[in-house]
Amino acid sequence: IEEKNDKELHKLLDDFHYADIAEILDELNLEEAMYVIKLLDSETTSDILMEMDEDNREKVLKNLSAKEIAEEIEELDTDDAADIISELPEDRQQDVIAQIEDEDHKAEIRELLAYDEDTAGGLMAKELVKVYETWTVAGCMRRIRGQAKDVTRVHSIYVVDKQERLIGRLSLKDLITAKSDQKIAEIKNSNVDSVNVKDDAEDVIKVMQKYDLEAVPVVDDNQKLLGRITIDDIVDVMKEEADKDYQLAAGITGDVDSDDSIYQLTKARLPWLFLGLVGGVGAFLIMEGFQSAFSKYAVLFFFTPLIAAMAGNVGVQSSAIIVQGLANDDVKGSINSRLIKEMLLAALNGSILALFLFVFVWVTQGDVNTALAISTSLVVVIIVAGLIGTFVPLFLNKQGIDPAIATGPFITTSNDIFGILIYFWIAKLILGI
Amino acid sequence: IEEKNDKELHKLLDDFHYADIAEILDELNLEEAMYVIKLLDSETTSDILMEMDEDNREKVLKNLSAKEIAEEIEELDTDDAADIISELPEDRQQDVIAQIEDEDHKAEIRELLAYDEDTAGGLMAKELVKVYETWTVAGCMRRIRGQAKDVTRVHSIYVVDKQERLIGRLSLKDLITAKSDQKIAEIKNSNVDSVNVKDDAEDVIKVMQKYDLEAVPVVDDNQKLLGRITIDDIVDVMKEEADKDYQLAAGITGDVDSDDSIYQLTKARLPWLFLGLVGGVGAFLIMEGFQSAFSKYAVLFFFTPLIAAMAGNVGVQSSAIIVQGLANDDVKGSINSRLIKEMLLAALNGSILALFLFVFVWVTQGDVNTALAISTSLVVVIIVAGLIGTFVPLFLNKQGIDPAIATGPFITTSNDIFGILIYFWIAKLILGI
Repeated sequence: IEEKNDKELHKLLDDFHYADIAEILDELNLEEAMYVIKLLDSETTSDILMEMDEDNREKVLKNLSAKEIAEEIEELDTDDAADIISELPEDRQQDVIAQIEDEDHKAEIRELLAYDEDTAGGLMAKELVKVYETWTVAGCMRRIRGQAKDVTRVHSIYVVDKQERLIGRLSLKDLITAKSDQKIAEIKNSNVDSVNVKDDAEDVIKVMQKYDLEAVPVVDDNQKLLGRITIDDIVDVMKEEADKDYQLAAGITGDVDSDDSIYQLTKARLPWLFLGLVGGVGAFLIMEGFQSAFSKYAVLFFFTPLIAAMAGNVGVQSSAIIVQGLANDDVKGSINSRLIKEMLLAALNGSILALFLFVFVWVTQGDVNTALAISTSLVVVIIVAGLIGTFVPLFLNKQGIDPAIATGPFITTSNDIFGILIYFWIAKLILGI
Repeated sequence: IEEKNDKELHKLLDDFHYADIAEILDELNLEEAMYVIKLLDSETTSDILMEMDEDNREKVLKNLSAKEIAEEIEELDTDDAADIISELPEDRQQDVIAQIEDEDHKAEIRELLAYDEDTAGGLMAKELVKVYETWTVAGCMRRIRGQAKDVTRVHSIYVVDKQERLIGRLSLKDLITAKSDQKIAEIKNSNVDSVNVKDDAEDVIKVMQKYDLEAVPVVDDNQKLLGRITIDDIVDVMKEEADKDYQLAAGITGDVDSDDSIYQLTKARLPWLFLGLVGGVGAFLIMEGFQSAFSKYAVLFFFTPLIAAMAGNVGVQSSAIIVQGLANDDVKGSINSRLIKEMLLAALNGSILALFLFVFVWVTQGDVNTALAISTSLVVVIIVAGLIGTFVPLFLNKQGIDPAIATGPFITTSNDIFGILIYFWIAKLILGI
């Protein structure tokens, strides 16, 4: 295809959706991708750029002049435009903004760039359809035809008063079914949900999900209408959050995917492995410390991997449930009642498992005391691991730290060490050493 | 509040959004909740029911007669109605359907109940706005006013031919901006994405996300328009999928949350813990088997928790990346090149970690050979763990099994055993025993 027969290629690509072209470009090398991009008009390429993989987009943008980027950006909605610009290095950002011809668009993008990425302000677009309460339905229809041209999807029409404060909303349906001489104030729905421009992205997701909203208006502290957030942007953020939490639980930081370079993957994975190494060294030191005491019971040492694994597994289970509950806002009641419930649960699970272990050790080792020591420790270790797994994310959350970091290697490693320590203490007690 | 002063309560609840009332009802006991539900009209309560926690909804429905449930259901969109009915026990389903008065609604709900929950058919609603290509814009506007009454959000207007086959779409905006004597066929957009009624829910999510759709029409094999799926339903499915995968990775099966009963939580957690127990017993047997060979090197046994932990951590990291890549459809290239990349990555990470371990063992134990044996094994164990973590999900995926079950306890346990086995083999080799 890449043999420069532009016409053929053009024809071929015209039939594709921009998301599909983006996927194809992600597969091509940079030179080929640049060739295709220069071939297409800026309306199509701006959409393609938005859909491309972030790393590839960065490379393509590096190869475009500030003027060319500005042209792409003029075609995009303000939220997407601001996202692309914020990915550029500081000095290029100013160059590109300076090249944007449409002054309104320029001012709006500047405004959006000022908001923090993880807030409602960072997610919103300036494009929306706005009407004043004093307009009539007929006048409104006329003006909406103008405004709607810039807005990809209308969703709701927002009603504002003279001070640009949000006081209601309308659907296109309401407008079509109303009489043409009615005033907007008469037919508006005053019951309009909105989010504050400073709200956290996660809170915006919760509001939109809870009330099944497809678009939500963003206001400032004075109720002044600033922009709106649409559900498709929220879907992307949700996906990112879910991916991030999943990776954190697996001991991977930063948003990497399987096609990233070995260096990037190492940076994301090695720190957590190092934590595991430190934990392992800790376990070694504990075992060495108990060596002389247990010289007669060498068999106890062979159960440490079992104890450590169970402590780790239980800890990850309980922390995962708490982390998820916190994310979904459905962890109710006091920390104490949580801990008591987890303790009962762990005691139940632990006892069932300990029973099997008791029989196994008794049969293979022929010593009731050893079997009793090991299985009793298992119950206690599981209870403590469950409590740590429950308490740590709740505590982090209270401190305003993302509890998601508490799952995975962090809980596993600390539970390994506590588990082994408890195991030897209890064994010592029961065996009377 | 519950002192039977109905009027006060009524006034109070009128100001709340149904999603908020649902949240309040979830907190009340059954008797109180029933009292509030009977107080409100069926339009509000049907929305409240949809937003309630599944377990609580089940209890409330048990306390309503088939007639009352049918009344609630008449107020709901077909997709929500079908969802609620499918939650009822088999025999009640028929009773409730028989009580629905609107014959069209009844037939539509019956149709939806026939589709598998996890397919496009199971997600779609019958409510949509449909126009024939032969209509004029003016005629279309008239009829849409009628159709749109039943449809909460219009999104797109679907254009069909005489055989009810989907041939295009229109937005309300297109309709408003068109001249009133134009034919629909002239202004329609023929470029309409659709999904097949038998498509997997996950594929529907991918299509809607990729093309940023807010609603997608559902057709059968003959392109006949059957229904449509809106983004708010997709958001709920996405959330469920993400929660499920997160829990699977933590060793929890079934969709439990932190407020579920101890019995439910045990059922979700115990099987995975049992797997860990079996793994631990396996580790014990391996260590016991090597006991006599390593009688002079007891210190080696103290490093097994470290080896097991590292094998588990690396395995979870690599499998998580693959599982996520598979879910996002961005795992490209052959299995072999994946495995080679993971091997290089693991070798790099492993060498760095092994270097630290080597120094630690050498300094504390004062024996180069022991240090060499332990650190060399660590590198090999990490490489093997990385390969297992990469290979297993890819293999499961090829077999059509959900690769998500491969993360968490499954990988950890198998890597623990393989890791410890490899560790002792290599140590034996290097120490020349």
